[in-house]
Amino acid sequence: MTKLDEKQIIRLFANKLGISNSLDDVALLKKGIVMKSDMLVASTDVPSGMQAWQAARKSMASCISDLAAKGIRPYAAVISLGIPNTCSMQQSYIEGLAEGFAIASKEFGVKIVGGDTNEASELVIDCSMIGFSRFKVPKRSGAKQGDYVIVSGPFGYAPAGLAILLQNAISVSGGSSDASSFFRKQAVKSVLEPCPRQRFGLSLARYFSSSIDSSDGLAVSLYELASQSEGVDIIIHSIPSVEGLDEFAQENRLDTHELVFHGGEEYEIVATISHTKIRQADAAARKAGVSLNVIGRVQKGSGNVFVRNTLLENRGYMHFHK
Amino acid sequence: MTKLDEKQIIRLFANKLGISNSLDDVALLKKGIVMKSDMLVASTDVPSGMQAWQAARKSMASCISDLAAKGIRPYAAVISLGIPNTCSMQQSYIEGLAEGFAIASKEFGVKIVGGDTNEASELVIDCSMIGFSRFKVPKRSGAKQGDYVIVSGPFGYAPAGLAILLQNAISVSGGSSDASSFFRKQAVKSVLEPCPRQRFGLSLARYFSSSIDSSDGLAVSLYELASQSEGVDIIIHSIPSVEGLDEFAQENRLDTHELVFHGGEEYEIVATISHTKIRQADAAARKAGVSLNVIGRVQKGSGNVFVRNTLLENRGYMHFHK
Repeated sequence: MTKLDEKQIIRLFANKLGISNSLDDVALLKKGIVMKSDMLVASTDVPSGMQAWQAARKSMASCISDLAAKGIRPYAAVISLGIPNTCSMQQSYIEGLAEGFAIASKEFGVKIVGGDTNEASELVIDCSMIGFSRFKVPKRSGAKQGDYVIVSGPFGYAPAGLAILLQNAISVSGGSSDASSFFRKQAVKSVLEPCPRQRFGLSLARYFSSSIDSSDGLAVSLYELASQSEGVDIIIHSIPSVEGLDEFAQENRLDTHELVFHGGEEYEIVATISHTKIRQADAAARKAGVSLNVIGRVQKGSGNVFVRNTLLENRGYMHFHK
Repeated sequence: MTKLDEKQIIRLFANKLGISNSLDDVALLKKGIVMKSDMLVASTDVPSGMQAWQAARKSMASCISDLAAKGIRPYAAVISLGIPNTCSMQQSYIEGLAEGFAIASKEFGVKIVGGDTNEASELVIDCSMIGFSRFKVPKRSGAKQGDYVIVSGPFGYAPAGLAILLQNAISVSGGSSDASSFFRKQAVKSVLEPCPRQRFGLSLARYFSSSIDSSDGLAVSLYELASQSEGVDIIIHSIPSVEGLDEFAQENRLDTHELVFHGGEEYEIVATISHTKIRQADAAARKAGVSLNVIGRVQKGSGNVFVRNTLLENRGYMHFHK
């Protein structure tokens, strides 16, 4: 029996169905309509400690993040629910989910217009959104030699937070200092209440030559841009590591590089911007109150990613990849 | 602990999220965009004997049926998949799913433009579609006194087919006559390869004063129209029973009335048409090669449904209702 990984499965469907941009974050339709769906599955996407409202909010946050990376403001969402018969039919649990959708709907500015309710063996939430493009939507494949590589924020919180939630040995309140305790709280919060970079994407996507949401991990995201674009490598010269990560990694015998590049579940935007637009983009970022973090450059190459002089491994968080 | 049934769950979400038409089949957006999503869950929606390609096709058929009831031609679909790690990662199973999507995409004339792949403890397929309305979309709430009640086809195949698939004692090839054997084959086929009434809906929905897809069962569908519309009852004078159902019911000690009204999983359209439009609608039906089956009338009332003089029970197939 041949087993397929997630990418192989996507390729198989794409070939069979003739979906040309199957490996991009969103689908582009006529009249500038953009469509996106994202499924949250409890066993893989809801870590222990995540409440019902947080799971509901996260299901929408994932979709929002994909749209944000392309500069799309969501217009409407429909939600399909699979709810376990057992615990989940408790009214309080359902109310928690509804509360999470209401919070996310307000926070992300998207109206929920309908849905579908089903029984399932575990909690499954599928969130589909449409929005309208106001400018040429950046693809994963547009990176050009000389472009700057930018990220919407630092990496490391989410995998650290997951490690904290998964290992009871490491308590959230633990840590040897105030700074460490603050880091742990933020790390856990980034997992339970992820913040997609909506403002960043909406104000800057018009300047992107290529872009992707980073939820499969920074390394995988960089490789997507490098390999889908034509004849380029990406060189990272500045590692976007979140403050406090080194201390946390040392305390817990984890590897900073691993946490930054091969984690995942982060809702940052990774993009490239032409050198001719970088000043404009930086000005737009300041105006929007976000910061443009340049971490590298695009060079002539063949789809590889280097951190300074070292080839980066192309692996990260991936469904089915165990 | 309070347990909620599906309708209570939908109401809870609708109230919390301010979704006004939460109990209708599709969501109407600006620019005539119609959005719909439907989730197929293996444990409730995929009976034993249903192959991967049939499950994939069914997930799209459900969505198509809801759109057809409102006269909407689908324009694009996105598919989210939850696939079990175990058996389902076999290449042949994934290929079966892809084949089913390809078949459905062609059969129903809808392009699949994107998707999302996940690992889940059971097969879950969420299908979201958008389409564009070309005329005023009928709601569930528009039935008026004097309207005719029509259906797109007869009822009984699907619950009979489910009974056959669920009970090994009743074999598909069994039956005491050729007619019975034909009935069994058709019944099973209607479950494994449901045919949403796309042509019927697309050619006739402009004449509907109210409409609904019947997949929750005929009784429940009629009650939806009667109770959501203002001050009306529905009186059924002609029971839309599929040919051969009586014989099948007798052979298997099942009740014809139960199979017709309280089954479900049928993808027929149930609608009302004003007496001023019934001739036009009938002509349009003939032109399209479909038949307009009048089964009753709308009368002044208070949301009840009668079969001749007897009050019909408001129950049928409903998730969480066990």
